[in-house]
Amino acid sequence: MDKEVRLLAEREQISLAKFNRNIKSGALVVVKNPQRNVKPLAIGAGASTKVNANIGISPDKSDLDSEIRKAKIAVEAGADTLMDLSVGGDVAQILSEIIKVSDVPLGTVPLYQLFGDKHLDFDFEDYLRVLEQQAKLGVDFMTIHAGLTRDAVEFAKKRVIPITSRGGCFLASWMNKQGLENPLYTGFDDVLEILAEYDVTISLGDGLRPGALADATDKAQITELKTLGRLTKRAWSCGVKVIVEGPGHVPLDQIQHNMRIQKRFCHNAPFYVLGPLVTDIACGYDHITSAIGGAVAAMHGADFLCYVTSAEHLGLPDEYQVREGVIASKIAAHSGDIVKYGARGRDDKLSAARGRLDWDAVLNLCIDPKVRDHYPGLGGERKCTMCGDFCALRIFRDL
Amino acid sequence: MDKEVRLLAEREQISLAKFNRNIKSGALVVVKNPQRNVKPLAIGAGASTKVNANIGISPDKSDLDSEIRKAKIAVEAGADTLMDLSVGGDVAQILSEIIKVSDVPLGTVPLYQLFGDKHLDFDFEDYLRVLEQQAKLGVDFMTIHAGLTRDAVEFAKKRVIPITSRGGCFLASWMNKQGLENPLYTGFDDVLEILAEYDVTISLGDGLRPGALADATDKAQITELKTLGRLTKRAWSCGVKVIVEGPGHVPLDQIQHNMRIQKRFCHNAPFYVLGPLVTDIACGYDHITSAIGGAVAAMHGADFLCYVTSAEHLGLPDEYQVREGVIASKIAAHSGDIVKYGARGRDDKLSAARGRLDWDAVLNLCIDPKVRDHYPGLGGERKCTMCGDFCALRIFRDL
Repeated sequence: MDKEVRLLAEREQISLAKFNRNIKSGALVVVKNPQRNVKPLAIGAGASTKVNANIGISPDKSDLDSEIRKAKIAVEAGADTLMDLSVGGDVAQILSEIIKVSDVPLGTVPLYQLFGDKHLDFDFEDYLRVLEQQAKLGVDFMTIHAGLTRDAVEFAKKRVIPITSRGGCFLASWMNKQGLENPLYTGFDDVLEILAEYDVTISLGDGLRPGALADATDKAQITELKTLGRLTKRAWSCGVKVIVEGPGHVPLDQIQHNMRIQKRFCHNAPFYVLGPLVTDIACGYDHITSAIGGAVAAMHGADFLCYVTSAEHLGLPDEYQVREGVIASKIAAHSGDIVKYGARGRDDKLSAARGRLDWDAVLNLCIDPKVRDHYPGLGGERKCTMCGDFCALRIFRDL
Repeated sequence: MDKEVRLLAEREQISLAKFNRNIKSGALVVVKNPQRNVKPLAIGAGASTKVNANIGISPDKSDLDSEIRKAKIAVEAGADTLMDLSVGGDVAQILSEIIKVSDVPLGTVPLYQLFGDKHLDFDFEDYLRVLEQQAKLGVDFMTIHAGLTRDAVEFAKKRVIPITSRGGCFLASWMNKQGLENPLYTGFDDVLEILAEYDVTISLGDGLRPGALADATDKAQITELKTLGRLTKRAWSCGVKVIVEGPGHVPLDQIQHNMRIQKRFCHNAPFYVLGPLVTDIACGYDHITSAIGGAVAAMHGADFLCYVTSAEHLGLPDEYQVREGVIASKIAAHSGDIVKYGARGRDDKLSAARGRLDWDAVLNLCIDPKVRDHYPGLGGERKCTMCGDFCALRIFRDL
């Protein structure tokens, strides 16, 4: 483990002392389930902003082979982690297949497997069984919506979109049907016991994240966030590593505030944002709206971006959209890291190569190594079709 | 004209008094060349953020028909203005054709026509002839790099990318060859005389905009910006409407500062940004990097965004890329306007429709009306393939 930590600190270009300090304070986590042979990943303070890609079968579309192909595509495009969000089907089989083909950390929302199997006819023991089954399989981090309490759900009822989170909605329905408080909240210590045993990182889900700009930073969201802050401390006290999830749909000028209060309420635990999307009207282009929000979030302290594809709000993404979504999020993460860490080295190298009209070097330094395939003319002739001989860089060089 | 101004103020949802006040102070311009039957467009303080799309033939690629198709596509996708950036070929013919097929304001860089015809063998009289010819044809706004002075060019020589602006580079080469100061600077009053006569808006070009993050907000850029501030006042004193152009490649955390100093140095003239791109390494995806920068710029006061396509830095965009580039910039402009003006009405309507699972209303309110074509299954069955029956919105509604 010592060597592993040293390598991770090197990869993140921070000192071992600082790395260990951040791990100790909980501001940084190393995600890795020891049950599985996975590349450990540092997420949090001092580490570069990471990107997650979601895959998973849906009841109406897609099949296992197709989702496995998407998993490979996402990792090739640079996703740092995968989450399987399958609902329905043989989830254990899907998880095993994903683990076989990829070596990046894998996350799940255990509630989805349960809901797919039993809808609302489950009890807390069933939940713990799924949790342990997935932990044994090697799942590295799990989204657990333990902060969704009955009082917070009450606040959400007045919203434009009351609950957009699937897990949040499943739980709210269960609570409504049973007339009980959220069992993941009341039984949080039992949850933590299993996670601690298998060294699984908890990703505290935000079941009440805003699903519309109109609902951003409202009482429902903040009530849940404050609960997540308390649960963060409880998890730490049980030796469980914590990531906290955040919004959602948020206007550009509220993003910085959202990052600040999350870090404050949750004691600087790493922040994992789902977007944020900065407008509601760009269906079909939400990889762009979330790249805008994600970049600003990363600049202001978000540590982990969940990709959003152009199919978001409309359907399950296809392979092209998965790839494009990962690249868009990588752009956002890197743009944030330029501010957060001054991580401009590759930018400067690429621009210097552009200044020399060294197309091969430019294309090699691109965030998407496959961009070269779409511009086959570039490289040899050393001019692009935009300006041809009227290229400013060429003219200046010849001065 | 009175009726036109009233309609414009209504369209921008500001009072006529405020509209007129902003016009008088120069913070708002109505772009329209009276030689031509064009829809007048308000750009600046109080008006929604506008989007420009560039088209134009290049010496190496493309033809007139193709560029005219791109012009139509850009306007259909929501571009508020077009700029023809043709270098080489019969520019007068191209401009006439564009004017025939579109009714949005048209911009040019007159120097391009001149350089395409004569390379560096032109004098200032030639320039003024092209200016007048284009003004007579009906060009509504013209980029004129009058602030590119010899001392500012000296500062640029140490940059990673000395000059990325094509117009800036043509002028610097001319100045170098002739050993003279920029004739558009020394002869600025003659330029203004023609623009005033035809009521053409000047877009003060930033020939030294940074072409790499490493060069952002440097002495070359700021020296030129200060000159543009002085030229703004001179243009106003001659009755010429002014827009000022800005960067370029700028790290996320420098964008707000760039907007502030532009507004200060240039006396609140409308600001027209070319990006800004927030990373240099995303070639192939610069519609996304510029949407990130453009949204943040618009939030902090940019009035007019020049689209950047995914082909930027690599080649001339095709029709698909033109359309995608316009939509990306529209998203950025709208995301900024949500902050600048609270322009969230359409977002709230769409989200309310989403909450009702009213797919037809959702699709009708999207920024891209054609998004419907790519998701033919949506509408009737009222569920999407992402979650199918496990849709959070559906479950919550049924509670």
